[in-house]
Amino acid sequence: MASEFDLISRFFKRPVPAGMLGGGDDCALFRIAPGLELATSKDLLLEGRHFFPDVDAFTLGHKSLAVNLSDLAAMGAKPIACLLGLALPSFDESWVARFADGFYALADQHGCALIGGDTTRSEHGIAISVTVFGEINPTQAMRRNAAKVGDDIWVSGQLGAADVAYRILAGSLKDDSSQGLFGLEGSLLAQTRASLECPNPRVFLGRRLAAHTHAAIDISDGLLQDLGHILQASGVGARIDGRLLPVHPALAQLSQADRRHAVLAGGDVYELCLTAAEDQRDNFERIGLEAGVPLTRIGQIIAGTGLRVMDDAGQCIEPLPQGFDHFRK
Amino acid sequence: MASEFDLISRFFKRPVPAGMLGGGDDCALFRIAPGLELATSKDLLLEGRHFFPDVDAFTLGHKSLAVNLSDLAAMGAKPIACLLGLALPSFDESWVARFADGFYALADQHGCALIGGDTTRSEHGIAISVTVFGEINPTQAMRRNAAKVGDDIWVSGQLGAADVAYRILAGSLKDDSSQGLFGLEGSLLAQTRASLECPNPRVFLGRRLAAHTHAAIDISDGLLQDLGHILQASGVGARIDGRLLPVHPALAQLSQADRRHAVLAGGDVYELCLTAAEDQRDNFERIGLEAGVPLTRIGQIIAGTGLRVMDDAGQCIEPLPQGFDHFRK
Repeated sequence: MASEFDLISRFFKRPVPAGMLGGGDDCALFRIAPGLELATSKDLLLEGRHFFPDVDAFTLGHKSLAVNLSDLAAMGAKPIACLLGLALPSFDESWVARFADGFYALADQHGCALIGGDTTRSEHGIAISVTVFGEINPTQAMRRNAAKVGDDIWVSGQLGAADVAYRILAGSLKDDSSQGLFGLEGSLLAQTRASLECPNPRVFLGRRLAAHTHAAIDISDGLLQDLGHILQASGVGARIDGRLLPVHPALAQLSQADRRHAVLAGGDVYELCLTAAEDQRDNFERIGLEAGVPLTRIGQIIAGTGLRVMDDAGQCIEPLPQGFDHFRK
Repeated sequence: MASEFDLISRFFKRPVPAGMLGGGDDCALFRIAPGLELATSKDLLLEGRHFFPDVDAFTLGHKSLAVNLSDLAAMGAKPIACLLGLALPSFDESWVARFADGFYALADQHGCALIGGDTTRSEHGIAISVTVFGEINPTQAMRRNAAKVGDDIWVSGQLGAADVAYRILAGSLKDDSSQGLFGLEGSLLAQTRASLECPNPRVFLGRRLAAHTHAAIDISDGLLQDLGHILQASGVGARIDGRLLPVHPALAQLSQADRRHAVLAGGDVYELCLTAAEDQRDNFERIGLEAGVPLTRIGQIIAGTGLRVMDDAGQCIEPLPQGFDHFRK
């Protein structure tokens, strides 16, 4: 669902020189040596728009890098380095130290050196700008426009938790579970919050799968919207079997409408959606096991256009949940 | 003069792997192929902090790329590509079109392809985040820590205009000249405004001078402060002859104190300050002529520490003007 802010990007889509991949994929790519491309991506995160003002500084440091590493993961690139721009309305030493700890912890885990950036005072709230660089063999880059009719559609991890946590924190979903036997520990928010605030970018998985995948995207804007980008770029359609979707177990207590919305349309999900030929099923299952990340086959790429999702009874869900209502856009 | 916001950056200065140059220079560098390094830099520009809310969109598009290209220029790197993150409080099509025109006009001039980025809605004012990439021969990168005792100190262009324009627009300096013979065309603001809002990054100059230069920096935080960074990184001192400083001619009508402040401490100057051996004088003069940019020898690197500036009578100016009062920091 294009917002007016998607329209802005149209002004910045002039052609790029041969050998470069411009906007419209998870990363921009350019050739840096024979057989080697640099993949790069940047995200600008603003307080109140992309995160709550009271979010923990450690998890914010983690997430501001994670959302960018997720773009590298979706291309199959290996992280090399990153830059950080940080604008703060005031200087709170312990806050900055915690932010740095969260940022470096994830950077170290992925061998992604923080090599530069800038800090400044902001007039209004926190602004965080991260740029990541990765390297990739051009023949293996997982582009959005490479899905083929007959491909299986796969998704990593479990879906829906980030949307639920967001809606509880934003006050639009009530957490009825907090009086449970285990108190807060067992609350719906406690079970889902890490997915929202501390996502694990699927970097290792993306690199391992790159040689076996046609198209891929990270579903940060929600499964339907981001899979839609693959379909549009590839000129194909898709059919999803709703019974196969890997729903986060905490969502069992929600109404069907809330669950469907969270799984199909909920954003801020740093999982990968990939398409691959049927003969890659063994490779996907093996690599998922080795990476310790569930990989679930949820449907197929079909000829034509459009995206259909079947419910438990094999009926088309209509209308599909829409409206990614998270921080973005 | 370190502000508390310079202190923030200390939290992000953990060591970087061998083969990479981390924060603390105009660009970060990392090896991408034998004999080739990628130079990269990013700046985060916020409304009210780095530019006035009513600035023209075309010049803002220009400047948001120019300040980043200036960092490439100061390393001697050749621009390759850039990313743009743009957060706007509302969508004004003609504003975005003008911003894009200003951005692309400068990008095209320097062969710097815009290959990606993101756009989003902001709650508070405009935020612009640009990342640039350039390439450079590692043996020619102009680093801050390479100044040598006996080096000449050079500066490109003319100094002081951006500070004057900023202070007139901010209301802290009165423009008495607007009643002159030529009306507004001849006003002090009219003569100085382009230096503030539409600076020309010295990319060609930096690339041509790289083979002849020891250390370089762009003086976006002001001549004294940025030359101070070279001195500190190189473990040397400097003596500047105030009579040699290339003062913008519009400053002739200012008081000596205002002029000194603008030339020595005024920021938002996208000129280069470079140090080079005495036997490079002919090369500097020739390259300056070929590039059409004045290059002026303003002093020398000396043993020891500290920075002295001599006035017209050959006396040390004490105290030196301080306090970069522009948008930054």
